[in-house]
Amino acid sequence: MNRQELFEQIRQQQSFLCVGLDTDLKKIPADLLQTADPQYEFNRRIIDATRQYAVAYKINTAFYEVYGAKGWESMRKTVAYLPNNAFKIADAKRGDIGNTSEMYAEAFLKQIGFDAITLSPYMGEDSISPYYQYAGKWAIILGLTSNKGSADLQLKAQGDGYFYETVLKTAQTWGNTNNTMFVIGATQPAYFERVRQLVPEHFLLVPGVGAQGGDLHAICAAGLNSHCGLLVNSSRNIIYAGKDMNDFEYKAQKAAENLQMEMAGILKSKGLI
Amino acid sequence: MNRQELFEQIRQQQSFLCVGLDTDLKKIPADLLQTADPQYEFNRRIIDATRQYAVAYKINTAFYEVYGAKGWESMRKTVAYLPNNAFKIADAKRGDIGNTSEMYAEAFLKQIGFDAITLSPYMGEDSISPYYQYAGKWAIILGLTSNKGSADLQLKAQGDGYFYETVLKTAQTWGNTNNTMFVIGATQPAYFERVRQLVPEHFLLVPGVGAQGGDLHAICAAGLNSHCGLLVNSSRNIIYAGKDMNDFEYKAQKAAENLQMEMAGILKSKGLI
Repeated sequence: MNRQELFEQIRQQQSFLCVGLDTDLKKIPADLLQTADPQYEFNRRIIDATRQYAVAYKINTAFYEVYGAKGWESMRKTVAYLPNNAFKIADAKRGDIGNTSEMYAEAFLKQIGFDAITLSPYMGEDSISPYYQYAGKWAIILGLTSNKGSADLQLKAQGDGYFYETVLKTAQTWGNTNNTMFVIGATQPAYFERVRQLVPEHFLLVPGVGAQGGDLHAICAAGLNSHCGLLVNSSRNIIYAGKDMNDFEYKAQKAAENLQMEMAGILKSKGLI
Repeated sequence: MNRQELFEQIRQQQSFLCVGLDTDLKKIPADLLQTADPQYEFNRRIIDATRQYAVAYKINTAFYEVYGAKGWESMRKTVAYLPNNAFKIADAKRGDIGNTSEMYAEAFLKQIGFDAITLSPYMGEDSISPYYQYAGKWAIILGLTSNKGSADLQLKAQGDGYFYETVLKTAQTWGNTNNTMFVIGATQPAYFERVRQLVPEHFLLVPGVGAQGGDLHAICAAGLNSHCGLLVNSSRNIIYAGKDMNDFEYKAQKAAENLQMEMAGILKSKGLI
């Protein structure tokens, strides 16, 4: 999927919502724990409840690795179950030397079939370029993250700016707008204007709306571009909107629908749909 | 295992060798592919061949994830097979927000039983601190890596030094010398003196000796400290020293023994044993 195709999908669904499947067995309805594969079973139902409203799904690999080989299989089955037109993100935050990155790229983009993977920029271009070997796939590189610790290194002064700006300036030369996105946390609205000066055309993956406190309108005001240019992720506020077996799907659906409707309004007001 | 205990192990074995189990089914003797779990079977034999000479083993998670759930199980079994006194490193290069890092910490340090995990510093202190919750376990934070791409961001000028120096100065305040190491590539001998000014007491995990071209004596000259302070990793030059079923164990043993003997000589010459 290239940038134009992703934009068309966004226009069709009137949504730039990404649902984060941070599926924790301690937080899903207890009845599901009786099934053979509770993580997959929960995900399957959440996907069915939200697929109309989400253009993308993001799977946080940590939540699957904690269950070992069984969790890895639940992740694989979940990706296989996702709709064909959904943009499938491995939130894996990998980053290693070339021959190792080749293995990660094969594992996530080829074997499991994700469309994109989140990556740390710290080890430089040869840690990212192996992911570009797969046509139509994306590297989503950490820029300015949503957590408190983003201040520790990303916001260190460097030259006449911050270190994350150096990352955006440097890393955008490694790929192009059809295979590279950047992670910019929704908790950082003050920085979106500067981010858009540095990477006006790239898609941004924006986590932190909802449980982490990010505000959708604030980030859209400075973050939208001519191709929408945003995938806004919400995890806990959607998938754990309900806690009971009899209403968790409905509540997840409503939470996703509410965000989608807000997004449709924003897209219309900007003339993007 | 704390710093003193690791040093005692190094003195006892007269070695600071770490063997990297980057086990690629395309590179192991073909006869092993007939066994039920070729990755584990290869690792088991390499471990038996090298355990006398290595104080640590490093498992590169990418090489297991590429085989999916089966690979994850091979990794788990390999760690369970490692000698009790071996220092067990997950070369996973993770790094994420707090609640996600907690999941990774549980997956690697508790469930699988690694002693340490390699981590990217880019997301800051709250991405690392969850790993410190496990007593006796270690965070091994990327400092200056062995690949060409280390020049792209780590060696960007910042203040009166380089960005990797800021990382070392900042990240050493997150933990202490009993739970934190730094990755410094063996291909960067010119920087070891500066690294030791910044982190004189910490252990350094040093990949890149052998296949990547790093020189053992050059890094020891500036890198050794009063507690040895180095774990030097070799992967491909040991585990693929032989390619045939009838001699790969013997050749791996010899390659490990040769490095251990060099290390014993260095430790003696520095009065550390």
